[in-house]
Amino acid sequence: MSEIVPVILCGGSGTRLWPRSRATCPKPFLPLIGKETIFEATLARCAPFAAPVIVTGTAHLDHVEAQLGSGGARILVEPQARNTAAAIALAALRLPADAVMLVCPSDHHIGNPQAFAEAARKAAALAQQGWLVSFGIEATAPETGYGYLKRGEMLGDLGFRTAQFVEKPDLEKAKAFLAEGGYSWNGGIFAFSVARFLEELETHCPDVLGPVREAVSSGSEDGARFHPDSAAFARAESISVDYAVMERTDRAALVPADMDWSDIGSWESLHAARDKDGLGNSVRGKVELVDCRRVLVESDGPRVSVIGLEGVVIVVDGDEVLVTTMEGAQKVGKLDGAANQ
Amino acid sequence: MSEIVPVILCGGSGTRLWPRSRATCPKPFLPLIGKETIFEATLARCAPFAAPVIVTGTAHLDHVEAQLGSGGARILVEPQARNTAAAIALAALRLPADAVMLVCPSDHHIGNPQAFAEAARKAAALAQQGWLVSFGIEATAPETGYGYLKRGEMLGDLGFRTAQFVEKPDLEKAKAFLAEGGYSWNGGIFAFSVARFLEELETHCPDVLGPVREAVSSGSEDGARFHPDSAAFARAESISVDYAVMERTDRAALVPADMDWSDIGSWESLHAARDKDGLGNSVRGKVELVDCRRVLVESDGPRVSVIGLEGVVIVVDGDEVLVTTMEGAQKVGKLDGAANQ
Repeated sequence: MSEIVPVILCGGSGTRLWPRSRATCPKPFLPLIGKETIFEATLARCAPFAAPVIVTGTAHLDHVEAQLGSGGARILVEPQARNTAAAIALAALRLPADAVMLVCPSDHHIGNPQAFAEAARKAAALAQQGWLVSFGIEATAPETGYGYLKRGEMLGDLGFRTAQFVEKPDLEKAKAFLAEGGYSWNGGIFAFSVARFLEELETHCPDVLGPVREAVSSGSEDGARFHPDSAAFARAESISVDYAVMERTDRAALVPADMDWSDIGSWESLHAARDKDGLGNSVRGKVELVDCRRVLVESDGPRVSVIGLEGVVIVVDGDEVLVTTMEGAQKVGKLDGAANQ
Repeated sequence: MSEIVPVILCGGSGTRLWPRSRATCPKPFLPLIGKETIFEATLARCAPFAAPVIVTGTAHLDHVEAQLGSGGARILVEPQARNTAAAIALAALRLPADAVMLVCPSDHHIGNPQAFAEAARKAAALAQQGWLVSFGIEATAPETGYGYLKRGEMLGDLGFRTAQFVEKPDLEKAKAFLAEGGYSWNGGIFAFSVARFLEELETHCPDVLGPVREAVSSGSEDGARFHPDSAAFARAESISVDYAVMERTDRAALVPADMDWSDIGSWESLHAARDKDGLGNSVRGKVELVDCRRVLVESDGPRVSVIGLEGVVIVVDGDEVLVTTMEGAQKVGKLDGAANQ
């Protein structure tokens, strides 16, 4: 069996959990659930595998290095963000051709790390057989914020061929998927053989691979950090790995994963992932609740007193206060404060 | 016609508008509506009459003197709070026997000061005839938080004999009063002839008058301030003027007053008294509203961003943040922060 190398993608600005998550310290680097940061928890659940490769930008490098610990990780520093296809290509070109990459976003919560590790081993086995493998996340609600994967034929006892990639559906479609069964959420977690991934990228998206290859050959090492050449990297097409490879290959597979997953994509989903009291309330900091249900309240300083509210999020962070309904939390990224950081 | 002397009562701690109103700077001394403080607005609407007498405690003396302006006011400094009967007795004993006292709380909002002045002149005329006169405030809703006055026979074109004092009713009773007509709210605004008030107090409540009389005769002047003797004043019974005199006398009268009155007794009633936008929102400070209706938001510093809320009050004041429904605002005074100031 090949080495399984976690490739952890640390990008993104995290406006949807503003004002807690800010451009200067986004979601992965905050202890949003439990005491570890989301990035630390990601590292911890990848610990059963080889030392990880972290792909990140200069903006987050300090956070990454401060939280990385002593696991022998390597860091690939993107001169600028060029989306996931380029980020994964960068990692692939720095790894042995026979390794299997386990590609993980750094800003997801997984409540059951053991189920993650089991799914990762199955995915790696399929990847070694030449499949490009997505984690097919157990769909537990008719979510309209995720793409869906439709299962095709079984691939032994490891997983399924991916019959179809479905863009974010409307509510009616999402409900139909759930009722029909055989659909999973596409959470952006993958397993690829390095060699196979590069072949597919060469075939389907040479405008990513060419520039990144050039950026790597002209790059420079600096201890555990590797800096690809900035000018070359900038020429890579900015495209997601889903569009660049997964939807174009005829070797897409999925491994079902029921692992208490959340992308913590809004204050509503953070509330869902957090421990709560018997009335569904989750609080952090100095908080007094009277007649409240299903509220999330957190404060980094001032006391927050709340009376009579249900389904509301209240966040006090330095010079910003956010108060939103759970439903309204979708609009947080568009607030003046979040948009103009 | 006798001199009409406004007697302005500045007591109370104002926990119901916490955290804006604090023990150290309560409601009267804050610009809650418009740019003037509530106390300044009270002084302004009493300006048509004689120079006022302010009855206040040592705790609020600084605020009173800072906001008093140059109207020749006298200040009676209560060594401790002994309720309204003692406060008014104190003023009466420092005024000429033939003056008419116009007793006003300092923490009410009156949107129509001209209507107030007209009612005050009628009330003073009745007081000169020996009546103890309450302002009967136009009841515009079935409020359960106020006492009610029932009108009796007409007293010329000035007002009515008060047929009955009704304690705070339940909702059903309050609705019946409104449907029946002939009931007003008892807002704690009065006109009394000084001599008549002292006679009635002597008759019905000598345990207030005796000690206050002694406190005044042993008191000391200090510029515009008068300090009654502390030990004597402390012996005065602590009782409201309603219980001590108004409900016991057979000469109670009322003058109807339709003057856009509010006791600003909660964040809900402050919201009602404030100017609002077309969606019923009232904001102060750095605030962004998205999809909000009927909210009151104010901040003394941090930006407050609000999404999707209706009928909610949000107050940021220093080290305290309050978020409550309009209905829940009744409970503000019982919060830890408000109760343990």
